[in-house]
Amino acid sequence: MPTGNSAALIGLDWGTTSLRAHLLDASGAVIERRSSAEGILADHKGGFEGTFGRVAGDWVARAPGLPVIASGMITSRNGWVETPYVRVPAGVDELASSLVPHDLSPASRIHFVCGMDYDPVDGTPDIMRGEETQIAGCLERGSGGEGEEGLFVMPGTHSKWVSVRGRRLDKFDTYMTGEVYAVLKGHSILGRLMEKSAGPLGTGFDQGVSARLESDGSLLRHVFSARTMALFDRVAPDQVADYLSGLLIGEEVRSALKDCGSGSGSGSGAGATVTIVGDGALTERYRRALELAGVAAVPAPEDAAALGHFAIARQAGLIAG
Amino acid sequence: MPTGNSAALIGLDWGTTSLRAHLLDASGAVIERRSSAEGILADHKGGFEGTFGRVAGDWVARAPGLPVIASGMITSRNGWVETPYVRVPAGVDELASSLVPHDLSPASRIHFVCGMDYDPVDGTPDIMRGEETQIAGCLERGSGGEGEEGLFVMPGTHSKWVSVRGRRLDKFDTYMTGEVYAVLKGHSILGRLMEKSAGPLGTGFDQGVSARLESDGSLLRHVFSARTMALFDRVAPDQVADYLSGLLIGEEVRSALKDCGSGSGSGSGAGATVTIVGDGALTERYRRALELAGVAAVPAPEDAAALGHFAIARQAGLIAG
Repeated sequence: MPTGNSAALIGLDWGTTSLRAHLLDASGAVIERRSSAEGILADHKGGFEGTFGRVAGDWVARAPGLPVIASGMITSRNGWVETPYVRVPAGVDELASSLVPHDLSPASRIHFVCGMDYDPVDGTPDIMRGEETQIAGCLERGSGGEGEEGLFVMPGTHSKWVSVRGRRLDKFDTYMTGEVYAVLKGHSILGRLMEKSAGPLGTGFDQGVSARLESDGSLLRHVFSARTMALFDRVAPDQVADYLSGLLIGEEVRSALKDCGSGSGSGSGAGATVTIVGDGALTERYRRALELAGVAAVPAPEDAAALGHFAIARQAGLIAG
Repeated sequence: MPTGNSAALIGLDWGTTSLRAHLLDASGAVIERRSSAEGILADHKGGFEGTFGRVAGDWVARAPGLPVIASGMITSRNGWVETPYVRVPAGVDELASSLVPHDLSPASRIHFVCGMDYDPVDGTPDIMRGEETQIAGCLERGSGGEGEEGLFVMPGTHSKWVSVRGRRLDKFDTYMTGEVYAVLKGHSILGRLMEKSAGPLGTGFDQGVSARLESDGSLLRHVFSARTMALFDRVAPDQVADYLSGLLIGEEVRSALKDCGSGSGSGSGAGATVTIVGDGALTERYRRALELAGVAAVPAPEDAAALGHFAIARQAGLIAG
């Protein structure tokens, strides 16, 4: 239920598989939070506006004219309103000045946050929708080295690594780690030798991470060792899945630390600190992999997306007071 | 139909999804060939012996006591008779002296060829069953640099790269290229933007190979460009599948040439020659990728497996005369 603070903003973190809504006060504190499995791929009766009304309609009714801000895949071609990308380097300023407004009613307007894109010299562009807002939220709370510089990882099906410099997103890279793991486990020969692990994070994971950190051979060859190591009894059957997970996350961590060390972002590699954005078991895997690589990890602030919505909305002059 | 030459050997190249049988004369020439989709995963009524009888029983009936030699996954745990691995470096001598005999009848015996394994210092072992026999066949015909040294690639679901030194298999590596391509195309988000290509080998393939040969970034990041390059209209929808194929084969070729250049095998890299073992559209992709890498490719002799069966059987004293 609402506290005594008056509502100043509704923030929607609306991704492919979930919708998280926050009611915020004028200081950026969360008054109330709701979540729904109605990501953009769900069946939206009454369209996205209908879903928004069911999830947050009472917030709007209590405070007509309350500004609404939304980020994530809801701004993609398959979302509610497609927004362009803001090119990095960019920060809260650019996100605030590029908001795409959409009228819900004469009294109510929703502002969509643009995603960001990155077009490095190697000619392979990269994109994000939603993560830029979470990074803005981390910076709002001074996460990642006093908020000026830092390296952030956002583990997931498609992990993002973001370098921040001067409070702006400087560059970022997407790694398909989570999805490659899922398809190799579920659909390749590697899944056949895997037995369910009893524990939460097995020794096979450490073994995989360490092996990959030490190898510069091709990943296409190294993943085959998830089969041969099992056949040679060097990885137990209930550790093969974690071993493969370790190989892949080890590859990602090694590459991301190397890229950031040589890129225009903050210096990284051993001794650096990485901020992990997210929660759940997957972030623990990344923390452990970074530890094995000699890099300390710190968690991002809670409600990073909501904090980002607040920072962008404030910069855009949407918040009264 | 049989020629006038008398039969001296039956060779079986019996893999996971197919069985190829050859009737050979005492000079190693193929008198007759047969193939069947009854690989080891098929439903073998009457067991493997029943299948062998249906495919080659008349050959045995015509010449009772004719030696039979078999290689491939038929020697694996899920095959007919499981054989151990011969450790590289090894050649025809070791394959001949390690044949595993199995009596079919008092007059008829089948000899199973051992697979090979490789246990490099990095602790990730590798294995093959069947490819060692094809290499023996290539060497029998002097393929790969007068038969003394050479680098061989055997494209497939799991590609093998084999370095030969002094007519012996020196080391080898397995790359899961074909299977990774299939699972990413069939089960990941990358498949969603792919449209069927009109031509046999599109410009997207060259684009993918070249991009990967020039990049030393992580493959987990690079494969995501099969999505972003399509979204940014830099790869046409009907070329996305070939682009991904190019990225993966480019990765394999680059890694294999680098490994062999620095390994104990024959010097490789630009200027070297690679022998491609196999047939069909996939070998053309490897030939083209090698060309883009500045490396000439030559085809292996036809019937490499049959030639290998002949060389091993002759060395083992199984062939009369």
